[in-house]
Formats: sequence, structure tokens, C-alpha cells
Amino acid sequence: MAGLREECGVFAVWNDPEAAKITYLGLYAQQHRGQESCGIISCDEEKFYEHKGLGLVGDVFKEESFKKLYGHSAIGHVRYSTTGQNHLSNAQPLQALLKTGPVAIAHNGNLVNAAQLRHQLIQTGAIFQGSNDTECLLHLIAQSPKHDFLESLKDVLTKIEGAFSLVIQTKDKIIAARDPMGFRPLVIGQRKLDDGGSSRVIASESCAFDLIGAQYEREVSPGELLIIDKNGEESFEFGTSERKAHCVFEHIYFSRPDSYVFSKSVYMMRKLMGQALYNENPIEADYVIPVPDSGVPAALGYSEESGIPFELGIIRNHYIGRTFILPSQSIRSFGVKIKLNPQRHILKDKKVVVVDDSLVRGTTSQKIIQLVRQSGAKEVHFCIASPPTKASCYYGVDTPRRKQLIASEMEQEEIRKHIGADSLTYLSVESMLKAIGESKQNYCAACFDEDYPTKIYDLQK
Amino acid sequence: MAGLREECGVFAVWNDPEAAKITYLGLYAQQHRGQESCGIISCDEEKFYEHKGLGLVGDVFKEESFKKLYGHSAIGHVRYSTTGQNHLSNAQPLQALLKTGPVAIAHNGNLVNAAQLRHQLIQTGAIFQGSNDTECLLHLIAQSPKHDFLESLKDVLTKIEGAFSLVIQTKDKIIAARDPMGFRPLVIGQRKLDDGGSSRVIASESCAFDLIGAQYEREVSPGELLIIDKNGEESFEFGTSERKAHCVFEHIYFSRPDSYVFSKSVYMMRKLMGQALYNENPIEADYVIPVPDSGVPAALGYSEESGIPFELGIIRNHYIGRTFILPSQSIRSFGVKIKLNPQRHILKDKKVVVVDDSLVRGTTSQKIIQLVRQSGAKEVHFCIASPPTKASCYYGVDTPRRKQLIASEMEQEEIRKHIGADSLTYLSVESMLKAIGESKQNYCAACFDEDYPTKIYDLQK
Amino acid sequence: MAGLREECGVFAVWNDPEAAKITYLGLYAQQHRGQESCGIISCDEEKFYEHKGLGLVGDVFKEESFKKLYGHSAIGHVRYSTTGQNHLSNAQPLQALLKTGPVAIAHNGNLVNAAQLRHQLIQTGAIFQGSNDTECLLHLIAQSPKHDFLESLKDVLTKIEGAFSLVIQTKDKIIAARDPMGFRPLVIGQRKLDDGGSSRVIASESCAFDLIGAQYEREVSPGELLIIDKNGEESFEFGTSERKAHCVFEHIYFSRPDSYVFSKSVYMMRKLMGQALYNENPIEADYVIPVPDSGVPAALGYSEESGIPFELGIIRNHYIGRTFILPSQSIRSFGVKIKLNPQRHILKDKKVVVVDDSLVRGTTSQKIIQLVRQSGAKEVHFCIASPPTKASCYYGVDTPRRKQLIASEMEQEEIRKHIGADSLTYLSVESMLKAIGESKQNYCAACFDEDYPTKIYDLQK
Amino acid sequence: MAGLREECGVFAVWNDPEAAKITYLGLYAQQHRGQESCGIISCDEEKFYEHKGLGLVGDVFKEESFKKLYGHSAIGHVRYSTTGQNHLSNAQPLQALLKTGPVAIAHNGNLVNAAQLRHQLIQTGAIFQGSNDTECLLHLIAQSPKHDFLESLKDVLTKIEGAFSLVIQTKDKIIAARDPMGFRPLVIGQRKLDDGGSSRVIASESCAFDLIGAQYEREVSPGELLIIDKNGEESFEFGTSERKAHCVFEHIYFSRPDSYVFSKSVYMMRKLMGQALYNENPIEADYVIPVPDSGVPAALGYSEESGIPFELGIIRNHYIGRTFILPSQSIRSFGVKIKLNPQRHILKDKKVVVVDDSLVRGTTSQKIIQLVRQSGAKEVHFCIASPPTKASCYYGVDTPRRKQLIASEMEQEEIRKHIGADSLTYLSVESMLKAIGESKQNYCAACFDEDYPTKIYDLQK
Repeated sequence: MAGLREECGVFAVWNDPEAAKITYLGLYAQQHRGQESCGIISCDEEKFYEHKGLGLVGDVFKEESFKKLYGHSAIGHVRYSTTGQNHLSNAQPLQALLKTGPVAIAHNGNLVNAAQLRHQLIQTGAIFQGSNDTECLLHLIAQSPKHDFLESLKDVLTKIEGAFSLVIQTKDKIIAARDPMGFRPLVIGQRKLDDGGSSRVIASESCAFDLIGAQYEREVSPGELLIIDKNGEESFEFGTSERKAHCVFEHIYFSRPDSYVFSKSVYMMRKLMGQALYNENPIEADYVIPVPDSGVPAALGYSEESGIPFELGIIRNHYIGRTFILPSQSIRSFGVKIKLNPQRHILKDKKVVVVDDSLVRGTTSQKIIQLVRQSGAKEVHFCIASPPTKASCYYGVDTPRRKQLIASEMEQEEIRKHIGADSLTYLSVESMLKAIGESKQNYCAACFDEDYPTKIYDLQK
Repeated sequence: MAGLREECGVFAVWNDPEAAKITYLGLYAQQHRGQESCGIISCDEEKFYEHKGLGLVGDVFKEESFKKLYGHSAIGHVRYSTTGQNHLSNAQPLQALLKTGPVAIAHNGNLVNAAQLRHQLIQTGAIFQGSNDTECLLHLIAQSPKHDFLESLKDVLTKIEGAFSLVIQTKDKIIAARDPMGFRPLVIGQRKLDDGGSSRVIASESCAFDLIGAQYEREVSPGELLIIDKNGEESFEFGTSERKAHCVFEHIYFSRPDSYVFSKSVYMMRKLMGQALYNENPIEADYVIPVPDSGVPAALGYSEESGIPFELGIIRNHYIGRTFILPSQSIRSFGVKIKLNPQRHILKDKKVVVVDDSLVRGTTSQKIIQLVRQSGAKEVHFCIASPPTKASCYYGVDTPRRKQLIASEMEQEEIRKHIGADSLTYLSVESMLKAIGESKQNYCAACFDEDYPTKIYDLQK
Repeated sequence: MAGLREECGVFAVWNDPEAAKITYLGLYAQQHRGQESCGIISCDEEKFYEHKGLGLVGDVFKEESFKKLYGHSAIGHVRYSTTGQNHLSNAQPLQALLKTGPVAIAHNGNLVNAAQLRHQLIQTGAIFQGSNDTECLLHLIAQSPKHDFLESLKDVLTKIEGAFSLVIQTKDKIIAARDPMGFRPLVIGQRKLDDGGSSRVIASESCAFDLIGAQYEREVSPGELLIIDKNGEESFEFGTSERKAHCVFEHIYFSRPDSYVFSKSVYMMRKLMGQALYNENPIEADYVIPVPDSGVPAALGYSEESGIPFELGIIRNHYIGRTFILPSQSIRSFGVKIKLNPQRHILKDKKVVVVDDSLVRGTTSQKIIQLVRQSGAKEVHFCIASPPTKASCYYGVDTPRRKQLIASEMEQEEIRKHIGADSLTYLSVESMLKAIGESKQNYCAACFDEDYPTKIYDLQK
Repeated sequence: MAGLREECGVFAVWNDPEAAKITYLGLYAQQHRGQESCGIISCDEEKFYEHKGLGLVGDVFKEESFKKLYGHSAIGHVRYSTTGQNHLSNAQPLQALLKTGPVAIAHNGNLVNAAQLRHQLIQTGAIFQGSNDTECLLHLIAQSPKHDFLESLKDVLTKIEGAFSLVIQTKDKIIAARDPMGFRPLVIGQRKLDDGGSSRVIASESCAFDLIGAQYEREVSPGELLIIDKNGEESFEFGTSERKAHCVFEHIYFSRPDSYVFSKSVYMMRKLMGQALYNENPIEADYVIPVPDSGVPAALGYSEESGIPFELGIIRNHYIGRTFILPSQSIRSFGVKIKLNPQRHILKDKKVVVVDDSLVRGTTSQKIIQLVRQSGAKEVHFCIASPPTKASCYYGVDTPRRKQLIASEMEQEEIRKHIGADSLTYLSVESMLKAIGESKQNYCAACFDEDYPTKIYDLQK
């Protein structure tokens, strides 16, 4: 049902006797960031061990998978496929043998100059077996004139543009790097071991640390290159940028509410956006009804701020399996009903504010409003705790085509009519950023206002 | 994590060109009532067609499964196995060829005189291939001296004691029956067909009707035998009882919050119990925190009644697959953490009321309280929106052994210490029933007070 | 490709510390007797433990399946489904709780009075959950007026007519029984245990003993009831018959060539029939070519007797998986070609005798002859090492409908033309029996000559 | 049980409306050449479509797999993994985007200078994602200074040494190439289409053509580069060698008996080797007994030449599934018995010649001889229709380590004692080649005599 989809989540661990299992848990907790393929590469200082597959973490990894994932360090990845073909050859982490030894990379984000780099690399004789940016990175490192891996990597990090939160495994190091604008999150933590020591963990979201009993410490800074090995840790600044570009959609929808991203509680940001939503366009109603689960925190904020009672007027069924056989066409709005069930006894004859986190295509919103009306609601006011999505993302998010983004095709009043609401309100970009206490200088909201923080190359569009 | 488990859900449909698919959806919506096996038997007035299997509805039924489920009527069943062996031979509906023709039965509930009946039947030469009560029913009908199926059935319905909500398929009829005390729910609805006609649907819970676009009409009355065939519908009263015995745990935990059972909204009953919980033992705190998802409605009621702000201080992860590989023992409380993640930024230094729906073994409660404390809560007050479970159910619910029911072994103060709460409060049976507007004359609360509405035979214990 | 299919194989073991695993191997070796479902029921003198499923033995049983199959005795079964619906409810062994305790039965064969017995039993109030004869047996035992299980069983064995080779498990016994005419095979052996003791094993075919390292001892005699328990073994004769009725098709096709059935080597019988085939109708040719694998022993016999060189002119591909996607219709005779590949360099310009074991529908024979001709053979003489199949079997074999049996519809010369052979020869019933050294008094050849050794009831046809 | 394993089989088709399905069948027929992974890449002149997986052809490809394999040309591959890790990243065909466009390659054979090439390529900045030679080929083509794909390919074909039978797919061509010594087979055929046209097919073995109804035409010549496109076919000789090096083990064991390889019938070669085996060391006995299935043709030859009767004294069970649960240790020689069952009634008190195709480790031979003796054979003469394997293969065959090759560790008499035979005879390299009518100039028999036809580099050993 979601309109935008995060493309990846990464995880890495150093110095843990159960490195592969810890990575598995770290990916499991980040399953929401990518559900089409996943993989782990571990290392015992001699060799790399790999297990990758198409599907969910819990399906790809079995007890026996861990029997061959030796070693005390590991990196892992979950991903969506960006385009049609869900090739296993695109599943990450990607490993390769370079002249400086073997290396494995897991990447969250998208490079904006990937097509150019790819084209240049092919001209010089590089071969591309898949279609992801990570292969580009490997080639760049391989072709760097530097003789040392770290020097090559530093070199490459200054040549790539766009969004990249990387974890890298070499025979004797775990490395993390984040682009100078900090598009995607990347956090560091520590896990106490039974023997008194501790292991280093890196993840896209802090919720991965909670599951494994690790302590969140800080973000990997934009432009930071962090190298972890036997001698300890070293941090370099490989690039700087006045302008930061944290993805505001991480707060709105992508990240789990129990995560800290960009040093803020996702749950709290959502509540604050819900409060701002009321303050910007106060609507009086009998009930505030969230679209579960993603609209719940904003609806709580809306209810608190407005004093209008919060009611679970739409119940979500969590017993939904992965496969579902489509019934006859005679059952209308089935796709929505299998998940969401409005409650007539609450909605009947009531004036309700329905709160959702975002508005992308508008198709689901339309069906929800219809179901709510059929359940007897007198007035349905649809309130979105973010601006309407209007433009494509080039930084690691799978956006529908522009034509499918309802707000790029229609004005507010048209949308309201289209989705069938009595009123439609949403947050402006300014109010949204104000609500989370930030300025435009630090965040990317290009999917709302087309103000892209980097150059966008023609090849990419 | 649940301590008590509903054992079954049933569904039936008459006169629907897509009878098997509608039944599939009816079972899908009632998956929470039984996740170990499921089955459908359809009928085209000539023959029965069957598909059963171990596992979830979405896994057992594939597109091809429906190619052989012909006919315009069908019954279906989801079930838990009550005891160790999860035999497919116990999967329902059960069908048999009797002298009056073929019959299939799906049953929710448990008979209290099943062991006696079974013993008698075996003496007369009946053979039992499984261990469920339904086979008992089939034998009783088969051995009835009456020559007509309906007469035999009526006869049998007066001989069985305990809880039974039945749907029955014969070549030309769909039949529903519910025990005179009405232990388990059973509801009737109607679904408009595209051709202008309508089909009759019967289910354990009304949420099944919402998914298939059917209208809820009423409960099958306690003691009612409803016969649906080409000539229309006929209703008989095969038994009456002053004392009714609706299972109060259907309101507390078993049923989906978006269902109507016993003519009441489950969601509303849970809110009312949450309100009563505060009124019976008012506790002042900074936040009301639900144990998600089951504790959310009661927590909302608690918060509304008390004026204490409601906060999602514990976030539930809904991306949990069915299989999970256990990590090292070094990760404590892992079983709880994979589902529930407390939020430090909310809980830190706060006095919180944690609301859950029920208290059965106490093990999960203990872990939750521990996690909440580790997240910095200053005081943790554990409030249960029902009485503590003390005794076994003989009416179709899988209860842990008495020794595992914490309230049958410990006094309130001991429990509080055991689970590590600063205070422990719960509803009395009286307040609970008062909250939902009912008297003890109508409800069964035997799992709380051991006041069993029927005779309990020695063989059963 | 086979026209007739054996319906079942049975196995039993007494006093073996690995009873379930030994039974698994016994079924594995008899997989050719039934590939649609299989099951094992073991017993530890207290309880029965069951594992059954649809599919091959190697797929239904996993390492973990054996963790719950306790006990030192067990019985097992492999089966084909006789009719359309491949219900798991028909999978054997079948177990039931009777007044004399629990019992489990595995059955090879078909009763000719099953329909009558079934009808009578239903009138007396028995319920039938499946459609197999074994359920009939259980009901008859349950309804026997005798109070002792063995007395009831003896009673019942005299009431059932037709083919039955049974193994039965009770809490403290393993029982074997075979109908007085001895239609289906049933053999006894002994397996030395590591501790110096020995276990008793019973199987349909002796090849099961070879795999588990057991020694073949003898057949269970027609009319014998063998009871094995702690006190040793007891053998009763519950019925006698002058006329015996060993199924000659066990020699021709059903049994594995490395088995002893009816005290004869199957491989040797096939060779002898091949010799007789030449002697009855000597044909001179360049090569004797078997249709592999089933025609190989007869072709060896034919070659030895005639002196014509034996050549593998048709090679069988053994790498055939279970599922196969059908290619375009443009590939002719594909179903045969995926298994059989004629060798042009051998067949080209040669006069060949092609030897197969039996002729049922004629469709495969037609395709084989066509392929052999396309490979350049000058003359193709088709020789069948048995008489052509003309009539249905009522004793435990799945025969195609009469209309599909080519020899019931056409005369020899018509068949020859239809299948496209230059000549068609086969064994007469008399020569066949003479070849294996037997008289019609001992064997059933009703599928060839319609001389049924028992009464055939109208209901059955 | 086999000691040596072929590592790959390839297939290609041009101009077939069902290119992917035909390739599927071509792989299916060549399943014996590689059972660990398989894949198909098809092309519609625009794009490549890929489906690969671990496992058997029949399991990896489902009906739906073909829905996305568009186009009229395709190449396919089956493979064994040579070393421990069965990575999907090594599954072929391998595709890559080069500056001259996309290309996909499937490769049978091993390059002897792969390690050197790999090392050089890595130094120049190439990255290796897998461990197979094919990736090497792709890099060499990519780095060739030539601007045209064909020119680059020709260039590369002269730089690689060792065994390679290649099929290559580009957007508008299918290409085949075979090393100048012709180590591995590669054959060309034609398939008539329904529309009157024809498609071009290329395979490792001619048995692939039989299944799809194509006509075998000729071998791709050693040193030939064949290019097929819209304009027809062009053949180049990219290299020549006086010395040819056809793998004699293709005749002995690898290829299917119904294939033509190196322009000879495999079945016939095996019979000729069986004849020569008798002539070189005539042994008189009661029976010639083949070890089925691989020893059957040689045993037929032995029997024909010697006049000693051929008997199936060991029966092979073909109902063996892929998974098998190991029984207790008390069942001796189980691994052999599950497949092979000696027949006591034939072997008892007889002097037998047991014929097998080859002798590698000796472990299976030892068990077979033991089983034959236990079945009563008086004398067991073990005759191998090839020389004993002594040395590693570097040309695409998975050989056990030298220490495990019994003939590299023991003299003939020691081996005889070790395997427990009364006599052990085998073919000399000379007699073997003479039997098949060839000189050492044309064949590679290095696994027997260590006379490697190419340089073997130190890195490789």
C-alpha cells in the first residue's frame, strides 16, 4: 500500500564471536527497509563466507546457514529491487577480489553520477554483471591508481556523488562511510559481550541495536570514513558540505517508529508533525481516526493538540500472510479491506478527522475514505501529516512515476474531490521542518518541493 | 505470548457461486482463532469436495486448490491442536458417509461429556480415528435410531453437553447450531450477489463478514438449530437454558477488536474494561502505556477515564516472520524483544501505568516490566483489564496447566513481586461484568472464579 | 507409462530398537508399489505414534519425523490412490480406538465384498470417513460380538472376501494375515541386531529385507494369521482354499526384479517368460531389443533361447525428475522420448525384435515402434512376454477402463496394425504359466482371461 | 558413487520461437553433466532475460519461469561446483555489460592458464565476483584493445589455454567455440520448425538433440569459431593443433550412452572396451555380471566376445529419491545397498566376472565385491573396462585428490587384495585406445598416464 519504498538497510559488526547471527538479527530488525533480497558476508581474517537469497531474512537464513558463516566480523544487507528484474545478481553485500585483496560492500542510497561512472568504466574495460551502484564502487576502487585499499577508497569516496551509507568488509577491517550531505541514516553502537569485552555494531537504524542488546552511541557523521580494526578505530573526514540533506521521509514513513534517525526519535517526530498538522489547519470533529499503523503517532499528536478524542475507528488485521488469493471482482476494495476494517459503531453519524502519514498516489486514501463513509461517517476530513509527494527521489527511494503521484497531477481541491473527502489538509514543507525543529539547510525534501540538494544528471532521469 | 488460546473458528456459506473462495476469505479473517490446521468442504448437491492441511489458511490454499472445490455451498474451519500431536486426522471439517448420506461438520467448542459419550460409543462398536469431539458427534448421529438426518441431529443435540457452535453441510442443506448456554459466538449475515440475489453466511465472528462485504444480521441464538436449504430457512429451538454462558474471554482477548460477538463490539468492551480498571483502582502516573497490540483498547479507555496521556511507550514490530532462529543466550529477554521495543526517550524517569488485557502465566509480563525499567522508567504500575486467570477452561479454550497459571499459585502481592511491578491492579469479576453491562447469569467467567456453568465430569479433569 | 499399477505395499517390524527407521527403509525399498502417499505408525507398548503424508517416502519423512516415532514395533504402508481424489484421509496405516484398545492396519489388496459390507455397516450406524477397504475392516472388528481383539479379528477374517495381505499393530502385538487364495505377496524375515537378538520383519516383497540386511525366511501362507508378541509367535489357519490365486502380474511387472514373490525369483520368471515367448513364436532377427527397464529380463531370456544378439537399442534416461514442463506440441512423442531414446547406429537397416513385459493400452507401444522405425529399423517385431491385458482386476490393482485396454477392443491383427509393428506376438496364458512352472489352479490371470477366482459382485463393477 | 564428475554441459539455440523451452529440454537431457546449478539466458534482440538457480533443471525451472524468458535465441548451462562453496554467483551462463554491448557465456572445460590470467587482470583493476574461468573470459574480452566484439573474442581465444567448449549469446548472435585440441565435446544440429523453417542448436552431447527432435549434423571442430546471426553462419579457424586431446573419459563414463561424442557412439565404444577387456585378459567364468547401470555396455561386450552368459546378477533400484535419511550404523554397506542389490539365486556357488566402467577410489568396488560374495559367489573376478585412474584432470573434471585415487597409491595386486577380488584386470591405455580405433595423438588419457597434452602451470596444482 505504501507509495514510496526505502531501498535498503545495512548492518555491520566487528569483534563478535557470533558475528553472523548478530548480523542476521540486525537485518531482521531492519526488514522493513527491504524485503526482496538479503545477504550476509562474514570473515574470519582469512576468507569470506557468504549467504544471500531472494526473500525475507527469516526465510533466506536457516539454522544451517550459519554453520558456514565463520568469523568475528560480518556485514549484511536487505534490499528492494529498484526495477523489474529481481535478479539475485543484484543482491548485496557484493564481494569481489581486487588486487588489494577481497572486499565486500553493502550500500544504502543511490549515486547520482552512477550512470556516468558506469559508462566511463565500461569504456575502460570494466564488466558489469548486475545493475546496482555497488558494482560501480567496486570497479572504481579496483581501478584506482593507489596501491593501498584505504587510499583507493578515500579516492573513490570523493568521486561519487549522491547518497551513500556504506559498510565495507575487508580481511582485517570493518569500514563505514556516509556521504557528506548525510542523505541516509547510519548509526554506531556497542554491544557488551559475556567475556567482558564489547563488539562494535553499525546499522541504518537504531532499532537494530535494541534487538541485539547493543547501546546506541552516535550517527556516522556526514562525510565520515570510519575504520575499525585490531588496532582500534580511526575516523577521517573525506568530504564536507555546508548543506546537509537528511531524508525527511525517514521521519515520515521509512524508519521504524522505535528508531533514532538523524539523532531524533522517529515516533516523536511523527507526533510533532501531527500536532503541527492541527495547528496549521485546525479542524473540529468528533474523533481523530488514524490510518493504522503508520498514521497512529501523527493521529496521537493531532488528538493531543486538538483535544479531539482519539479512536481506533479503523482496525488493522495483522494476521496477513504473504500470499493471498484474489477473490471475485464482486468484492470491492478488497485490497484495502484485507488489512483495514472500519468500525461502524464508532464512525456512524460522526464527523471524523482521518490522519495518515503521507499522500502519494491517492488510490488507497480514496478507498479508505470510501470505506469510512460506507461505515456511516457523516463527514470525513482527511489530514496528511506531511506535504503531498510530487517528485521523484534520486537518493535511494523507489518513487512511483511522476504521473502516478497525485499531487504532481492535481491541485489540492481536485485531489480532495478525487479521494472523496469533505476536506483535505496537509503540512507545508516549512511547517513540517519547523515541527521537527530543523531548517531546509539540513534536510532534503525534494520529493515535496523538487529542491534537489545535488546536481541531477540527464542520464538519470 | 498469549496464555490462553481459542481453539477454533468456523464459517459456512449457502448459495454463493464462489462458495469455496468466500469460505477461504471467511477463514482468513478468522485466522487468529486457529493457526495449526484449516480446511474447507464444499458441495455441489451431488458430491463433497475437500481440501485440508496443516498450517495457515494462506499456505494451505493455493489458486489450484479451488479448482476442485465445486459447488454453491461450503463450510470451513480453522483450529489449534489441543494436545501434543498435531495430527492431520484431527483437522476439520470432518466428513463421513452415514446411512442418511454424506455429512460434514465443523465445530467450535468442547463437549464436557465427550469422554463418556466416546466410551459408550466405543462399547457399541464405534471406531475413533482421531481425538476430537466432532467424531463423537458423527457417531451419535450415525447411531441415532431416527431415520431422518434432521431428526437424528435434533436427537443428538439434546444429548451433548458443553460448548458447541456448529456448522454442518449435507448434500442439500447448510445447518448451524449453538449450545443452549451460548458459550462460543456464532453469527449470521447476508451477502448481496452481483445477480441481485444474496447468499447466507455464518461465522464465529462478524469480522469475517466485513472482509467479504456481507452484512451482519444477528447471532445464532443459544439453543437454536437453523436449517438453510432451497426452500428457505427454518429455525428450531432444540434446548433452552435460563443460565447463559457467553465466554467473557472472547471480549478480553480471543476475538478480533473489529468483531461483534455476543451482540457487542469487542473493541468497545475492551475500552470499557480499561475505564473500569482505572475507576476500581485509580493510579496517577505520567503516562498510560499499552502492551501492544492486545492492550491498546483498554489503555485508551484507561487514559480517557483518567486523563493521563496515552503514549506508545512500547513499540511492536509487525515484520515478524513465522520462523526465527534463536540467537545466543547472551541476548536476554529475546523472545519478547523481537516483538516489543520500549522507547527510552518516553519512559525515562517517568511514572508509568502499563496496561495489558490479561494475566495468565506472568512470564511475559515479567519480561515487559523488566524491559520498561531498563529503559529508565521510575515507577512501573502494571494494570490488567480483567481478573487474573486461575482455572482451566473445559469449553473450547487451550488453558495452561493449573500450576502454570500464576494467579492459582500466588497471591496478588506475591505476583507483584514476581513480575517486578511497583503495583499490580486488576479488575474483579464483578467490575468486569458490570463494565460490559452484564450479569453473571449470562456470562461464563469460570477461568477467573471456577464457577463452571455446567457439570464437569471426572473423566475430563 | 505403465498401464497397470499396484496399489499398495506393506511393512512391519517387531522388536527393533529402530523400528520406525527400519520401517522407513522397508517402505523406501517398496516405493514402486505406491507413490502417492505413505505412512508409519509405531508403538511403544503404551501409545501409537503416527506420521503420514502425500508423496514419496523420501519426501514425507525427514530426520525430525523420527524423533516422535517411538517404540520397538511399527507398521508402514505405501499406496496409490485408486480414484480421483487423492485424500490424505485414505493414507494408511489407518488407526482407530476400539473397545479392545487402539489398533492400526495397513492393507494391500482389495476386498470383493467391500461395497456390501460397507452398506451393511452404514445401516448399523457406522460412519465412513474415507473410501478405502481398511476402514471397513476396522468397523467389522469394532462391531464383532467377541470381546477379545484376536477373536474379533479371526471372526472378521472369515467374513471378508477377496485379496488382503495385512499387517496390524496393537499395543503389544504385530499381526500379519493373508487371504486364503494368496492374491498379494507377503513375506517374513529376520534381522540380526547388534546386541545378539533379532527382530521380526514382514513385507510385501523380499527386496525390503535386502536393504535392511534381514534374511528372507518364507511367505506368510494363504489363510495364515500370524501373531507376534513378547511370548513368541503363534500361527493360525483362519481359512483354506484349494484354489490359489497368486497374481501373475506380480511376476510380469509389479514386483521388483530382485524380489522373491510367491517363493520365486521375479527376475528368473521374467527370463523364463522371455524364453517361452521365443519358443511359442520363434522370430528370426538381427537383434533382440528390450524396452527398458521392464522388458530387459524377458529380452535376455529371448536372446539366450534364440541366440539372437541382445542389444540396448533403446536407451533409458534415468535422470528424470518428478516434475516436467511440457514443451511445445511440435515435439512429437515427447512423453516417451523423455525416457526412451532409440539408437540409430544400432537400429539402422536392421530387423529387430522389440521385447516388452506387457501390453495394456497400446499407446506407448505405438510410440516406441514409431521411434524405432524413425531410427531406421527395417522390420520391427513386437513381442510381449505375457498375454495382452483384457479385463479389470478387482484384487488391488488399478486397471484402466475396459475400453482403454486395447486387447479388449481389438483382435491381434488389428492391434498389430494399430501399433504399427511388422508382427505382434505374445504369450498365451497357458504358456506363461507353464513357463513359470505353475498351473491355473494356483495363479490368478483374470486380467488376461476373465477367469476370476472369486465371485464378483454387481456393486463392484 | 562416481569417482570422477563432469563439471558442465552447455546448450544454445538460434531462431526458435520457443528458444527458452528448447534450451530447458536441452539442459534436461544433459542433467548428468552437472546437477548443482543451472541457468538459461534468452534474448529478444533487445534485452537479455535470465533465470538461474541452485539445483536440478526440473526444480529450478517452473512453468512461470518461462513467462519472462522472451526471445528466439538462448543459451543454457548445467554445472557441478568444483570446490566447497556452492555459490550461486558461480552459476552460469554469466552475463555482463561490455562496451560492445551485453554478452552472456556458458562454458564447459577448464583453462590451464586461468590463475595467471586472473592475476594479471586483477593487477589491471579487474574485479572478480566469483571463482570460475568464465568471468576471466569476460574480463579479457572487455579489456581487449579491439573495438569490435568479434575481433576481441578472436583475440581472446588465442590467449586462453586448456579446455573450452563455449556458447555465447550477444544481442544479435549465437556463437560457439571449441579449443584447438577439442578436449570437451560440442555438437551442432538442426531442428525443423512447424512453419517450415529450422532452428540451429548446439549442445555438449547429441542426446540433447534426440529429445527435442533435432538432427545431429557434426561436431564443432577443434579450433573452430562459429558465428550464427540473421545473415547466416560463418566459421573461422582461430587456432590449430596437430595434437588433439579428446577426453577419453567421455566415452568411459561421462556421456550418456545414447550420445555421439567425438563422432562416435558412446554405447558402442563401451561395448568395444568390454570386448578388448576380455581379449587382453581372458577370464573364464559362469557369468558376466555388470555393475549397473554404467557397467552394462562393457559387460555386454565382454559377454559377446567371451561367450560367457550375461546375467543381471546385481539389480539397480531406480526409485531412489534425492534425500535419504541415514539409518543406524548396524546396516552395513548401506550406501551401496540402497542402489545395488545382488541376486543370491544367480550368484550362489558361481564363478563370476563383475564388470565396471572404471576404478577411481576403490571404495564402492570393495563394497560391491563384498555384497556379491555375501550372496554366495564362489569366485569374484573384477574387470574394469578402462585403465585405473591415477592422476588429476585439469581440463574440466572434478577428480578426487591424488591420495584418494587408489591406483596412485597401490599396485595392482595390492588393489586386488584391498577390494577383495579373486582377480583384478583392466585395460591398458593402449588397448583402450586401440579398442575405440584411435591413437594417443588424438585423445587425452592423462588421468591414466599423466601425459598431459598442455603445459600445466604451477599455480594450478
